[in-house]
Amino acid sequence: MHFTSEQRLDGNVLERAFTLGEIPGILWTPASAAASAPVPLILLGHPPLGLPTMYPRLVARARQAVADGFAAATIELPGSGDRPRWDAAEQARAELRRAMGAGEPVTDEIIDALVLPLVDKAVPEWQAALDALLALPGIGGPVGYSGGVISIGVRLAVVEPRIVAAGLFAGSFVPRAIVGEARKVTIPLHVLLQWDDEANDRQAALDLFDAFGSKEKSLYANMGGHTGVPRFAGDEAAQFFTRHLK
Amino acid sequence: MHFTSEQRLDGNVLERAFTLGEIPGILWTPASAAASAPVPLILLGHPPLGLPTMYPRLVARARQAVADGFAAATIELPGSGDRPRWDAAEQARAELRRAMGAGEPVTDEIIDALVLPLVDKAVPEWQAALDALLALPGIGGPVGYSGGVISIGVRLAVVEPRIVAAGLFAGSFVPRAIVGEARKVTIPLHVLLQWDDEANDRQAALDLFDAFGSKEKSLYANMGGHTGVPRFAGDEAAQFFTRHLK
Repeated sequence: MHFTSEQRLDGNVLERAFTLGEIPGILWTPASAAASAPVPLILLGHPPLGLPTMYPRLVARARQAVADGFAAATIELPGSGDRPRWDAAEQARAELRRAMGAGEPVTDEIIDALVLPLVDKAVPEWQAALDALLALPGIGGPVGYSGGVISIGVRLAVVEPRIVAAGLFAGSFVPRAIVGEARKVTIPLHVLLQWDDEANDRQAALDLFDAFGSKEKSLYANMGGHTGVPRFAGDEAAQFFTRHLK
Repeated sequence: MHFTSEQRLDGNVLERAFTLGEIPGILWTPASAAASAPVPLILLGHPPLGLPTMYPRLVARARQAVADGFAAATIELPGSGDRPRWDAAEQARAELRRAMGAGEPVTDEIIDALVLPLVDKAVPEWQAALDALLALPGIGGPVGYSGGVISIGVRLAVVEPRIVAAGLFAGSFVPRAIVGEARKVTIPLHVLLQWDDEANDRQAALDLFDAFGSKEKSLYANMGGHTGVPRFAGDEAAQFFTRHLK
């Protein structure tokens, strides 16, 4: 992990860009944390739109996390931003656009081709980032995962024991295989669903929530469309992480 | 409205029992409110188990409300506690017990007979209580309704313009007619659902939530069974009322 730039933001936040091999990422920590005890870490998941596009929303979430006493970090998804595309993913995206444009149902085959390779590639990268981040001074455990792609969050919750709580955004297609994996999830979950999300299958999101094996799981459904998550929902997610990471 | 007893509870709470005609009720206010500005009011709804049975849970909710700067009040439901039973309600309860005991489905006819007369009787009583409560010094608007019976909350949200926000507990049978009324509800709603509530029809609760006409409505689904609402769910409901009544 190499830090490539650093700046101090308002509100006592130190923002550092880094690369982990070929993968760009960003780390936000309390600017005054050097002398204090290590803080828990929240991994900020995001849709595959590229970090430059997602930056405004990510930095807002990171500021909240740091204000609540956490470090926050994110990495670029494979095939997004400046990272190389791969043919199968491009084909799957094209097929999704074609089906939606034609008003056809989005089949399980399209969803599997779109999401499963992304999960398979991204999850080990998040785990490698976790290795590097937890080796830094000032960052300790426990670790939370927050956001989308929800299928990445599900897989991470199953395979990565350092993640002890997850706040997931049910805003993307979920392969059937991931619903199966959800039964193996046992950590506390805070699941956000935009009830009137035009681009999301509500019943699939409810089925996924039902499938989770966790004894403590909560579903938060709000209005406002895919990108209209209300401000208070962010506060509630922050309270969830404070309950479970501190 | 006649006050019949009064006691001061820990935490600066004044609890006064009252009767409104034949209807017993309880009012909780900040003990030091006399000299300050009127506070908003939260009506505490509850299942038809009688105020004496419900008192421990009601007083806990009332303490939270007063700590948050509200007054809180409740009245006995018709046919519950010390209030006279009526034959049709007793028959409907017996029919429900019989169907559930026999493992038969609870039909729409049973639900209608059980709930609709209760709603028809209770709603005007809550409105009369509101008239009396808002005439007291130290209690102002706006008013929120919190809790069950959810069908009473739905009807009140439709017919009572002084109620500007409702926190509803989706934990009881809902007649089809009430789902129809739900479309006319426009106030902000905070709906609590126990996802693994053995005694409640989850799909019916989701359908009711979907039917509400409110632009701002949020569903909070948690684990823990019918009576196992987690502590943080109470905090989130309190935050909802603080956002909308202050």
